[in-house]
Amino acid sequence: MPLRLLSASLALALAAGAAGAVAAPKVFDANITKPEVLAAQEAWCNALVQISTVGAREGQAAARAIAGEVLDTAYGYNLGPVLFKPTLTEAPQTFRTTREGALAYFVGGDPAFPKDDGFALKGWTACTVENVAIHINGDVATTMGNVMITNRNGSVTTVDKTWTFKKTDDGRLRIVLHHSSLPYTSG
Amino acid sequence: MPLRLLSASLALALAAGAAGAVAAPKVFDANITKPEVLAAQEAWCNALVQISTVGAREGQAAARAIAGEVLDTAYGYNLGPVLFKPTLTEAPQTFRTTREGALAYFVGGDPAFPKDDGFALKGWTACTVENVAIHINGDVATTMGNVMITNRNGSVTTVDKTWTFKKTDDGRLRIVLHHSSLPYTSG
Amino acid sequence: MPLRLLSASLALALAAGAAGAVAAPKVFDANITKPEVLAAQEAWCNALVQISTVGAREGQAAARAIAGEVLDTAYGYNLGPVLFKPTLTEAPQTFRTTREGALAYFVGGDPAFPKDDGFALKGWTACTVENVAIHINGDVATTMGNVMITNRNGSVTTVDKTWTFKKTDDGRLRIVLHHSSLPYTSG
Amino acid sequence: MPLRLLSASLALALAAGAAGAVAAPKVFDANITKPEVLAAQEAWCNALVQISTVGAREGQAAARAIAGEVLDTAYGYNLGPVLFKPTLTEAPQTFRTTREGALAYFVGGDPAFPKDDGFALKGWTACTVENVAIHINGDVATTMGNVMITNRNGSVTTVDKTWTFKKTDDGRLRIVLHHSSLPYTSG
Repeated sequence: MPLRLLSASLALALAAGAAGAVAAPKVFDANITKPEVLAAQEAWCNALVQISTVGAREGQAAARAIAGEVLDTAYGYNLGPVLFKPTLTEAPQTFRTTREGALAYFVGGDPAFPKDDGFALKGWTACTVENVAIHINGDVATTMGNVMITNRNGSVTTVDKTWTFKKTDDGRLRIVLHHSSLPYTSG
Repeated sequence: MPLRLLSASLALALAAGAAGAVAAPKVFDANITKPEVLAAQEAWCNALVQISTVGAREGQAAARAIAGEVLDTAYGYNLGPVLFKPTLTEAPQTFRTTREGALAYFVGGDPAFPKDDGFALKGWTACTVENVAIHINGDVATTMGNVMITNRNGSVTTVDKTWTFKKTDDGRLRIVLHHSSLPYTSG
Repeated sequence: MPLRLLSASLALALAAGAAGAVAAPKVFDANITKPEVLAAQEAWCNALVQISTVGAREGQAAARAIAGEVLDTAYGYNLGPVLFKPTLTEAPQTFRTTREGALAYFVGGDPAFPKDDGFALKGWTACTVENVAIHINGDVATTMGNVMITNRNGSVTTVDKTWTFKKTDDGRLRIVLHHSSLPYTSG
Repeated sequence: MPLRLLSASLALALAAGAAGAVAAPKVFDANITKPEVLAAQEAWCNALVQISTVGAREGQAAARAIAGEVLDTAYGYNLGPVLFKPTLTEAPQTFRTTREGALAYFVGGDPAFPKDDGFALKGWTACTVENVAIHINGDVATTMGNVMITNRNGSVTTVDKTWTFKKTDDGRLRIVLHHSSLPYTSG
């Protein structure tokens, strides 16, 4: 019995030694994380201010070019229809599931979307996010809360905002859902 | 050589025979499907009308009991905070991540939520959903579109609606995100 | 102009102040993590040794009771068929997609599985895991590597092992895939 | 009252009419399906036979080129480490988490993997899959069962096989886990 125990202990010690010698396992993690989501929100805010700034300095065409880049890198129009309900769109063009519709909303100037006057061109100088709750589920994460955007007069507009970000195979995040609405007031 | 080919053919035939004899593989599928999502939307609509009907006939206490059942079966408050921005809530109680906040919104009567007068008690008699786009991703699916609700006077209210449904281990769906807003009008 | 900038700065400062005051967002995270997976592997090892120990001390019936508890808490037979290929099973009963088949493998004594002599009853005294790689994908994580099990004579058996763990709604992990095999040797 | 009901009925009818007129929702579905998995398994079998056939006709270099293409399209080495335990590998090179290790296994000729003699070059003429169970979870699906491969003499080798396929952003499937083992026999 003592011999057996000794033998087992030795085996354990050897196993532990072997374990100590092996390399850490390689990890392939496809999941989205909260820090990634917060960084993507901040990037959205920065992009909005950037489009606004460029638009004010260099005109609509330059703003349009930047907005197109933002859509091509930060939104998931390359993956499928994006569930996008912008703050200020109206029926029957409320929802902008295509890149064209999103671009028209941000910088206007598209006769196919006659009511769009370019949301990103309204002179935004700052943008901050206050998350109320975050739901992380696989490679997608959804945030809900407020976004406060400041115009050049210092006036702050608050919107109720929901975003879903999807982490794609290259490890980057894209917006696949964006529902924005003005706060309700009973008056 | 011909013998070899014959042998190979025989083996193939036998393999095919064996394959034909085996049972179909057992399937364990955790994914959410579009029909499940459409059924859950219809159930939400039916529940809204039911709460309204019971409220009108039997009073707020009865409506409250049913609304509680709906929250306990159709929403994911048992899983974690729900990302819920109801149509008619106001700051600083815009978001209802808890069951209490959701119940107050639907049937009112909770002094902790003084502005809530019971959205589900407004005499709704019909509710229909028009989906613009659906994003299916693992055990969650998000829908975006309009919901039209009719009151007892036949007046129809349209809201912009986003829902995320999560399929839980028992195969049932729960709402984990619900962003509802009145349509924007430029005037 | 300076006034405008001041105004904007003030708004920013106020927004920052407000942001500082708000509570951290509530987080509902359904994803599985590496530490959870490592803990579940260790629990599997401990359970194997425990069944073995109880079997040696108290007999097969007691071991069977414990093995049943392990299957009911650590395996996903309650969710669906488990993809289980144990180390020492033979055709035509190689795969054990049901709880009965798994229990027979671990403790034997089931006439429906005549070749099973109770893998967990072979006097195991230690069990360690060496992961080579881990794949984390949503609520499932798969590990591949070696498991070394030591019997009461101090002899160590190494197996090639793949496990997939699924994190269920209650935040616990269950094995939904388990492929174990003896190492190949060319002789 | 009757007027109200009539009004409600009208509203319902109109709503139904409107619903009938709207387009079907756009669907963006990232989930993997059983038919996709079965097709990927069949493609794996066909690729094995193709490498074997080309190797026999055109030599190892040609087989190596095709095997490289197979690894680059059917395996997920571009995504991260693949959890690959081939049928005939031996310690300390049992696991092949890199493309180099997988290529060496299939076609041999790599001095870094001296025991590899090219599994795909063993004259395989047919390959069939018998799934025992399939687990579908988001964008990954795992299959477990037997694969029967026939050599040019008509001799059939059966292996116990587990695969996990991941559906990537482009809608294609890649193997991220592959555990293959010779059946155990008690003798």
